[in-house]
Amino acid sequence: MSATDETEKPDEEAALQLDAAGNLRHLLTLKGLDKALLTDILDDAERYLTLPGTLPARSQSLAGRTVANLFFEPSTRTRASFDLAGKRLGADVLNLDVNTSSRKKGESILDTIYTLEAMQVDVMVVRDASAGVPANIARNVQEHVCILNAGEAEVSHPTQGLLDLLTIRQHKRSFSDLKVAIVGDIRHSRVAMSASQGLATLGIGELRLISPPSLAPDPESLPGAVILDNLDEGLADADVVMALRIQRERIGNLEGIPAIDQYFANFGISEERLKIAAPDVIVMHPGPMNRGIEIESVVADGPRSVITQQVTNGVAVRMAVLDRVSRIMTAR
Amino acid sequence: MSATDETEKPDEEAALQLDAAGNLRHLLTLKGLDKALLTDILDDAERYLTLPGTLPARSQSLAGRTVANLFFEPSTRTRASFDLAGKRLGADVLNLDVNTSSRKKGESILDTIYTLEAMQVDVMVVRDASAGVPANIARNVQEHVCILNAGEAEVSHPTQGLLDLLTIRQHKRSFSDLKVAIVGDIRHSRVAMSASQGLATLGIGELRLISPPSLAPDPESLPGAVILDNLDEGLADADVVMALRIQRERIGNLEGIPAIDQYFANFGISEERLKIAAPDVIVMHPGPMNRGIEIESVVADGPRSVITQQVTNGVAVRMAVLDRVSRIMTAR
Amino acid sequence: MSATDETEKPDEEAALQLDAAGNLRHLLTLKGLDKALLTDILDDAERYLTLPGTLPARSQSLAGRTVANLFFEPSTRTRASFDLAGKRLGADVLNLDVNTSSRKKGESILDTIYTLEAMQVDVMVVRDASAGVPANIARNVQEHVCILNAGEAEVSHPTQGLLDLLTIRQHKRSFSDLKVAIVGDIRHSRVAMSASQGLATLGIGELRLISPPSLAPDPESLPGAVILDNLDEGLADADVVMALRIQRERIGNLEGIPAIDQYFANFGISEERLKIAAPDVIVMHPGPMNRGIEIESVVADGPRSVITQQVTNGVAVRMAVLDRVSRIMTAR
Repeated sequence: MSATDETEKPDEEAALQLDAAGNLRHLLTLKGLDKALLTDILDDAERYLTLPGTLPARSQSLAGRTVANLFFEPSTRTRASFDLAGKRLGADVLNLDVNTSSRKKGESILDTIYTLEAMQVDVMVVRDASAGVPANIARNVQEHVCILNAGEAEVSHPTQGLLDLLTIRQHKRSFSDLKVAIVGDIRHSRVAMSASQGLATLGIGELRLISPPSLAPDPESLPGAVILDNLDEGLADADVVMALRIQRERIGNLEGIPAIDQYFANFGISEERLKIAAPDVIVMHPGPMNRGIEIESVVADGPRSVITQQVTNGVAVRMAVLDRVSRIMTAR
Repeated sequence: MSATDETEKPDEEAALQLDAAGNLRHLLTLKGLDKALLTDILDDAERYLTLPGTLPARSQSLAGRTVANLFFEPSTRTRASFDLAGKRLGADVLNLDVNTSSRKKGESILDTIYTLEAMQVDVMVVRDASAGVPANIARNVQEHVCILNAGEAEVSHPTQGLLDLLTIRQHKRSFSDLKVAIVGDIRHSRVAMSASQGLATLGIGELRLISPPSLAPDPESLPGAVILDNLDEGLADADVVMALRIQRERIGNLEGIPAIDQYFANFGISEERLKIAAPDVIVMHPGPMNRGIEIESVVADGPRSVITQQVTNGVAVRMAVLDRVSRIMTAR
Repeated sequence: MSATDETEKPDEEAALQLDAAGNLRHLLTLKGLDKALLTDILDDAERYLTLPGTLPARSQSLAGRTVANLFFEPSTRTRASFDLAGKRLGADVLNLDVNTSSRKKGESILDTIYTLEAMQVDVMVVRDASAGVPANIARNVQEHVCILNAGEAEVSHPTQGLLDLLTIRQHKRSFSDLKVAIVGDIRHSRVAMSASQGLATLGIGELRLISPPSLAPDPESLPGAVILDNLDEGLADADVVMALRIQRERIGNLEGIPAIDQYFANFGISEERLKIAAPDVIVMHPGPMNRGIEIESVVADGPRSVITQQVTNGVAVRMAVLDRVSRIMTAR
């Protein structure tokens, strides 16, 4: 399975996600999903939130359905989040360990998918390191199967984007005058891509993408975003700061990227640097964090941090998406 | 645990599978199971089939029971199939990852089995690369534990055999005048062994085993089968063609086995070659497929292919077997 | 996360385990838990025992709750035991595979814990090779999360200790005049530590720890125990003999430790050596066993062995502990 041409992909992918009536069938990318749909999903997710220490929200809306987690890249949090979301909706959840899977035997991804389809798996949650894989799968499954993208190369991570939107909405009155700063390895970040796409659809005031020049995004991939290489410019009056995970091997290995200490000094989110942000700034991180590299521990654990709330929202958003696609199954 | 003497094994194994009243207690091999029992299992399995896109069949016949999947060889499809079969019957399913298991610590398989037995595991689904392991386990467990063979070395894969029988029965009126051609690495194939044994019991017209000479079976292992090394002879008027997976490392490594292209030219199932088969021939493959080596993609995905139906039947057959052995538990 | 100072730890850990009303909240160590509480847990566990072949005990006391198994060391039996204990109480069980986890990405254990906490995981079952990890986690989780130690370095394995106590109690009238001999690699054994602590609290007559001198425990770690390097002295009139697993790499590698045959001759539990024990001696082993090294097969499988009963008790004890901490959740 080769990657599709990325310049062609988004619109076709967007169309692929909705059925004839405009209902969500697959979730491949936030690009192309309209504001009403995003808002509906966030509203649904809110209903799955309960107080810490109380029982989590549950329903039986996926009772009898089977959700398969197919992670071709390692994952703890996203896999666990989908696992719990499925179980709390009453689904049977099948976790496929890619290290002991048929892929070792050289089977193509599509043959694995056809196999799961034949076992009456209803929802396949897919993470893969190659761009275009979730869409290619969605293009090839029967009409009663839903594909949810759980992380695709460097291009898309839509449920992460949704949980980021939900977290921001819980803390900020409106999106329209919001200044959001995403900081770090923008170029390789599917988290930044999905968050940016979602924020653009909801209509935020200003999106700033801050990174060393060598890790800056292609300007055409996110039209309207302000691309910066100076953290102070990016943080000034920011309402939301999202620090991205930097892969240690990218620091000091690529020309122009500073070593760890330099990276923290230039792009690390610290108490000191945050003084120029808005007084009620919230700080986000998709996890797992490199404390002391892209974010100072005192910030990660401090009052402005909404990082664990993002995780809680992640389960709720995934329940909302699973529930939404299951409504289509039931209607069929 | 050493392999038992294979010339002695089948009859003893067959006896081991049934309780005093003739009910199925373990499923180790199709050899020695009579036509009435095989037919009953296939009839039961039919009842677990539902239309694609509708909810899969479910029951609570294994509620409160525990099924453990013990796969000492990697597997996606068979493991997932047993997992779903167990869950859809209401069982608790325990998946034991052999890579992080006590076997690393040098524990014998039987000690692992005794441990699971002591945890009140009711059914153990075992795959192992050594011949004789499932029977040896069955010989050693307490009377309230059922052993299901999920793939044993090169000698037995009985639930695969049952799903193959079911698939053939769904497409062909009767077994008695059927010509079945199994093509590929017969010598090392537990799939071919179990299918052949089941077909012999059901009484088919003609069983042809086609392979390069170096991969031909021991003629004594399957009396009555026609052993061929010419594909056209094998396919002529065939009603059923089953292509087997060829391990790439076996092609070109053993004397007399042709390299990949040659293998496809000589033994690959293609549209062209199928022209001499019966007009309503069905094409089967146990998966995972090497497309372009043992089977042409256009055949695998074409109208004669029943390959995904085999997968669907696999879940149904495993539910039927689990349900059947659980009746013995309940009666006890 | 670094190990805490072990000389300080036990008392603080003990205090950490109980809430203000003295109820069990975490299970980190048996040290410091009083006789009444240990006895209550054993009494509860008895209620979860059913006859072999009948349905295992079940309840819905953890329905809606989530139990996460976090094993940073490989495990079959303890992981499976907690998995089944959780499922049989109606919990959703999340098994995190450490090989494909965020730890690969360099995330700290505490960040993994905070993530699970944010997903509303109620109970975290933790095994780790570093001393102090479970207590450190317990110190850092929110008040609605319970931590159960499933094996901690060489210092603690409290549910193993409880199942050992339960097994002894089932066979012996009273603890007060009991002679218990633990044999093997005492120095590195968390099993010996937890059993010894529990036995001390229940007030046994005499605890003997028998090992080669190089594997003897620090005498201060278990005050009151008799430390011996002669097996016959240890076994004389013993009512209970517990053989410990010896790591093969420790035999012959450390100065003063004999090679395998010598080890069996000097410290292996055999029929012959057991003649000097009490006539109704029971033989225990935590598993997995090295048959022929620390224990003779005829003993392991013989009438004095209670080894599989230990495994059965293990599930019951873990159900009792899970149920007990869940009562605190419900009361909150």
